Amino acid sequence: MSTNQTLLQAFQQASYPVAGHSKRTVQELKRALESVDANLAGDMYGTGHVIEDFQARMAAYLGKESAVFFPSGTMAQQIALRIWCDQKNSPKVAYHPLCHLEIHEKDGLKELHHIEAQLLADTDRLIRLDDVEQLDENVACLLLELPQREIGGQLPDYSELEAISAFCRERGIKLHMDGARLFEITPYYQKTAAEICSLFDSVYVSFYKGIGGIAGAILAGESEFTETSKVWKRRHGGDLISLYPYTISSDYYFEQRVGRMQQYYEGAKDLASRYNQCYGFRTIPAEPVSNMFHVHVNVSAEELEPQLISIYEATGIGLTGNLRPTSESSCYFEVSIGDRYTDLPKSKLMEAFQLLDAAMKQI
Amino acid sequence: MSTNQTLLQAFQQASYPVAGHSKRTVQELKRALESVDANLAGDMYGTGHVIEDFQARMAAYLGKESAVFFPSGTMAQQIALRIWCDQKNSPKVAYHPLCHLEIHEKDGLKELHHIEAQLLADTDRLIRLDDVEQLDENVACLLLELPQREIGGQLPDYSELEAISAFCRERGIKLHMDGARLFEITPYYQKTAAEICSLFDSVYVSFYKGIGGIAGAILAGESEFTETSKVWKRRHGGDLISLYPYTISSDYYFEQRVGRMQQYYEGAKDLASRYNQCYGFRTIPAEPVSNMFHVHVNVSAEELEPQLISIYEATGIGLTGNLRPTSESSCYFEVSIGDRYTDLPKSKLMEAFQLLDAAMKQI
Repeated sequence: MSTNQTLLQAFQQASYPVAGHSKRTVQELKRALESVDANLAGDMYGTGHVIEDFQARMAAYLGKESAVFFPSGTMAQQIALRIWCDQKNSPKVAYHPLCHLEIHEKDGLKELHHIEAQLLADTDRLIRLDDVEQLDENVACLLLELPQREIGGQLPDYSELEAISAFCRERGIKLHMDGARLFEITPYYQKTAAEICSLFDSVYVSFYKGIGGIAGAILAGESEFTETSKVWKRRHGGDLISLYPYTISSDYYFEQRVGRMQQYYEGAKDLASRYNQCYGFRTIPAEPVSNMFHVHVNVSAEELEPQLISIYEATGIGLTGNLRPTSESSCYFEVSIGDRYTDLPKSKLMEAFQLLDAAMKQI
Repeated sequence: MSTNQTLLQAFQQASYPVAGHSKRTVQELKRALESVDANLAGDMYGTGHVIEDFQARMAAYLGKESAVFFPSGTMAQQIALRIWCDQKNSPKVAYHPLCHLEIHEKDGLKELHHIEAQLLADTDRLIRLDDVEQLDENVACLLLELPQREIGGQLPDYSELEAISAFCRERGIKLHMDGARLFEITPYYQKTAAEICSLFDSVYVSFYKGIGGIAGAILAGESEFTETSKVWKRRHGGDLISLYPYTISSDYYFEQRVGRMQQYYEGAKDLASRYNQCYGFRTIPAEPVSNMFHVHVNVSAEELEPQLISIYEATGIGLTGNLRPTSESSCYFEVSIGDRYTDLPKSKLMEAFQLLDAAMKQI
């Protein structure tokens, strides 16, 4: 058994995990299904009330003309970029070097769509206006991920986002949002989702991050764009005879949680502050701008792990289930705050951080 | 309202629809979920008991080394053909002109994989050994659909299938099975699924035809093949964080119905015989070889439709929800037998066919 499996087990057995909503069990789907009548007709290849109504409500929420439900963001985003490339007749896009399409999709964009990506910015910082100003002329689409997950969920200032959007419109470069965590940033920006989306030509949102659904994504934009996306959805094998297990659960958990994003954001700031007061720890961002952040630790995963396990056992608090090495003597982990954080016994949490601080000073 | 919508409505309101298992409602998913504990952990990106156990059992059932669950057959089959083309370094496959990939997938195979297909046989007949013997040398893979759905679900003699398989192996052409309705043909061939699959290098099966699940597919073959298919599944956007709504329902309805294929086959033969005794009707095949067949009628859809509606209203029997024109004075429809046929009041069914025969003689 690897080291990480032991930490994961201790985390899974902890009474009070700090991150997320709940365990990913079949209960999540059963609960969502209880909200609908058993006689509700399933969707058939993208048609039927159960999918069309949800698409229409999401289009309105995002302030776009139309929206299409996809089984995954991987599929939705490749298709969005393909449509913009075809429209400009140029197989070139631009995105961050740690973009989901670059590091998590086995090069689907290149292997299936033959689209090349210009990587903007360094791996440890956001794309800035001056990066965008350097874009090749033949770039069909710029993808911005809000927040930029792989660097802790950072966000540009809203004014910079507006400037990037204006620049792209002027140059005829389409702007696509990887909004996997769009709902989660509305409290920081103090903007509605529709206001943020108005800066973009196309938007993808996910239903299993802050929303906590089972799986599924929405791709939104003008009707001509979304109609074309349905053709590509069929080609990708994503136009399933029935997607209702995902649309119903996405709808249910969206209604339940989209109003709690401020709470998750406040929770993230609270927890990050506790880490930043702890010896050897710092968070990125220093103050979170969404429900997520990264925790960097200046000891190795091997040194930290037994300390964490004993803290979980002593307090019941579960801080993380994994540690990823950044060097021989440092590591990091990701935290996303959900429903669980509010109900956490704060005295136990304080005790866990006191133990962690003391342990770190001993390492 | 179009003519077909009226017929569809009358069919949906009929007390005794002859085809299928039940209406496609959320109840089907709820029932399947009742069979599992709410605390069962969901799958995560293709890992976890809930998906791995089902894959292992399906691999064993199909007599293959390994199996991977896919959200759709469209995705699974494009990927199978891509793998065989890459292995031979030739972007060429062969299949029937009415193959699913040719007519129902918006040219995904061409648009995403740049694979060209040699079309074998005429649209109204099966691929024969002598067609296969004409195959171009650079064809990487031959796809056979068993049964050939778009021509009524016809099947070659098993000996011809064996000869095609032997020829392909000798020539280094991979043989892939579109087994969307594989379970449904085992009674006619008097073979196990594994015996039939042994003639093929790769096999796709579906869980929402005779099995009656919500959606989903299995792709099976040697481990090297299925491991590569997982990479392409990720690229296609099919490696969802959780596929358990489909794996659980596929598993549940597979266990419930795979043993009823003889019953569905007998039902199809019984119903086809009733049509063939009716004036102006004939079925393809004349005697079904699975649970499905096509019904061809030598009057126009416009003439037949009001007759059907009045028969549904008089007897409660619903024969079909749609009619597709084949000429100005002929039409056809497809029938797939499932759970419903057994419990049908046979006196009502007899009455419906007496009325149909009489009506047809008047047209």
